[in-house]
Amino acid sequence: MHTLWDERYALRTDNIGSSAIRELLKFTSQPDVISFAGGMPAPEVFPIEAFKKACEVVLSEMGEQALQYGTTEGYQPLRELIARNASKYGIQISADNVLITTGSQQALDLLGRIFINRGDRILVESPTYLGAIQAWNAYGVKYVTIPSDENGMVTEMLESRLRTGIKFIYVLPNFQNPTGVTLSRERRKQLVEMADAYGVPIVEDDPYGQLRFEGEHQTPVVVIDDEMRAKEVPIYSGNVIYTSTFSKILAPGLRLAWVVAPTEVIKKMVQAKQGCDLHTATFNQYIAYELASSPSMKEHIHLIRKVYTERRDTMLQALKDYMPEGVLWTKPKGGLFLWVTLPDCIDTSKIFNEAVDQKVAFVPGGPFHPLGGGENTMRLNFSNSKPEMIQEGIKRLAKVIKNNLC
Amino acid sequence: MHTLWDERYALRTDNIGSSAIRELLKFTSQPDVISFAGGMPAPEVFPIEAFKKACEVVLSEMGEQALQYGTTEGYQPLRELIARNASKYGIQISADNVLITTGSQQALDLLGRIFINRGDRILVESPTYLGAIQAWNAYGVKYVTIPSDENGMVTEMLESRLRTGIKFIYVLPNFQNPTGVTLSRERRKQLVEMADAYGVPIVEDDPYGQLRFEGEHQTPVVVIDDEMRAKEVPIYSGNVIYTSTFSKILAPGLRLAWVVAPTEVIKKMVQAKQGCDLHTATFNQYIAYELASSPSMKEHIHLIRKVYTERRDTMLQALKDYMPEGVLWTKPKGGLFLWVTLPDCIDTSKIFNEAVDQKVAFVPGGPFHPLGGGENTMRLNFSNSKPEMIQEGIKRLAKVIKNNLC
Repeated sequence: MHTLWDERYALRTDNIGSSAIRELLKFTSQPDVISFAGGMPAPEVFPIEAFKKACEVVLSEMGEQALQYGTTEGYQPLRELIARNASKYGIQISADNVLITTGSQQALDLLGRIFINRGDRILVESPTYLGAIQAWNAYGVKYVTIPSDENGMVTEMLESRLRTGIKFIYVLPNFQNPTGVTLSRERRKQLVEMADAYGVPIVEDDPYGQLRFEGEHQTPVVVIDDEMRAKEVPIYSGNVIYTSTFSKILAPGLRLAWVVAPTEVIKKMVQAKQGCDLHTATFNQYIAYELASSPSMKEHIHLIRKVYTERRDTMLQALKDYMPEGVLWTKPKGGLFLWVTLPDCIDTSKIFNEAVDQKVAFVPGGPFHPLGGGENTMRLNFSNSKPEMIQEGIKRLAKVIKNNLC
Repeated sequence: MHTLWDERYALRTDNIGSSAIRELLKFTSQPDVISFAGGMPAPEVFPIEAFKKACEVVLSEMGEQALQYGTTEGYQPLRELIARNASKYGIQISADNVLITTGSQQALDLLGRIFINRGDRILVESPTYLGAIQAWNAYGVKYVTIPSDENGMVTEMLESRLRTGIKFIYVLPNFQNPTGVTLSRERRKQLVEMADAYGVPIVEDDPYGQLRFEGEHQTPVVVIDDEMRAKEVPIYSGNVIYTSTFSKILAPGLRLAWVVAPTEVIKKMVQAKQGCDLHTATFNQYIAYELASSPSMKEHIHLIRKVYTERRDTMLQALKDYMPEGVLWTKPKGGLFLWVTLPDCIDTSKIFNEAVDQKVAFVPGGPFHPLGGGENTMRLNFSNSKPEMIQEGIKRLAKVIKNNLC
């Protein structure tokens, strides 16, 4: 009886796939489990008072517009604000280059819609962001992978991949999800040049760029692409589609992100978005505009950086204190995650249950590798647990790992 | 230069299509045009003070949760509220039968994702809702149409259509968009029985069901389907997928709707939704829960009904007063729209520009017909203009029509 619909109506499952990780995360939501599994911001730093004020202002001064239908492209002042902010990096874009999306996940989905025909090949880092894999699986994509090291995607290996025919290159250059590593300036240039030479566009996914704890800001790939071009056209018309989000600097509960791209790409994405959800929630866009255009936004981002720096430092110290020899980890300069590599003989998906029994959780690294591998790796989130919990959690995790050493 | 991306990367356009109507609506947003074109609620009735209070309560009492990531299925108390409300109609469902979506448009898109393989045939009323056509075009659907009269879909003609092989039947039973007509009780039964006999599911789209101005509430198709079945299973597991929205009873700017369906369908939709936008905005769901669970919600819906009744009456009277002979229109008992049929020789898309010149706008009826036809029809919205504007607008429109009589 319970499979009636599947049997009778052959509901499509091919290539949509359930997210194993999301299923797994359900087990980690018990209150006594210290979870390094999710990718959630610290709720303690949500600017709740500023949200209250923004709601009050928006509803009092523009309630009728903020609650009404809006345009698919997005709230014009918000698009303009994003365009102005981009110009600080020396790239000229206008609001026409900006699309507001229902979270970055929708940006990835829309890119799948307009780019991918069944069987197309996409080049991704391995490991890469799970949400991208899930979005594009629905379009019957095939993955080609490129490894990364402490300086991000190993661009020295790009050319051999690009020769095989690639629809686009997907890269998370800053504090990558899941590894936490950052693509170096040299490699950014190499990526841009190589993609241009082969006529392959780049999708630059940058949710964490503003959450740098130390070191120098790295120029976005889209800006390097723009700098490289002779400026016949003042407005960006290059080879990179850039996406970022308000989820990590304001709140993920708004589902609010944006895409910067050449206008032809934005137009196609708008057409696709109309069929998906008409437009992004108007109310949320008005509130985000109030918050993001306020002078206190800068301070707020400073606060997030400060809180996350402490949490990262605590996690790095605890790893050093508790982990047995043979366990390696990345040392991210920003973002939400770090990446742990265990001795080859340990499969992190097999020790997951034991860890949850010990009241600590992580994400096994395997699923981040679209072509397999990485069974001895795991992703740890440091943004969502307080320092004392991080220390205790790493202690528990180290114990589980020690139990399973080979 | 400006088609660079299209040429180089062959961006997909097949079957996505631009919404001609949305493009056209841009011309009607000039402030001196009286527009009957959009489908917008009256902003004057948005419960702005209640929204303010809800934002204050949500942010003060549950700010950290309301701004955080949520589950793909939706905010559990909101799902439970919807399940409880459904049980008032005598249908047993639980929260597991409910998915919260980013507007009804997303519900339609997700249904396309899980049901439609390229070339599948969907049965729709002609005329039918434009957003559904746009959502499903992206999946390469083929339409089979069935006409409607003053009692809705002509179900007497269903069987011949179902014999041709249909993936699902799409119906808007209450105050249909675009015609404003309501499916009669007899025909609802006939629809349910026939769909069951042929093993074809029904998608019941009900955005306006609560906005009835007069006459008796019609039992939803999903409830009739449930009543017809022997109750081996207490929880609904029938043949109908029902969708409704907060856009018309609260505010469209929230992008908040829901689906009621057998749990297997919900599960598939959840998988598909994960790839599309992870989950519906948490903040919006918390606010909607505050508002929809408040005792004043009932009063609010009464207010909307009252305001829209007056506007509909004004439009009907103005049509009677100003329209020349040979012009016909529907008399909806609720909702937002009515439907005008002109003499055969007038093409409403051809008089559109003249109407805008005369500072009045409508939507030409042609695009609502997926297989063509209806060139002499138009959709008029009465919810978004104040009575005095409605009267003046219909006067202007009548003048344009008189100019073009044959």
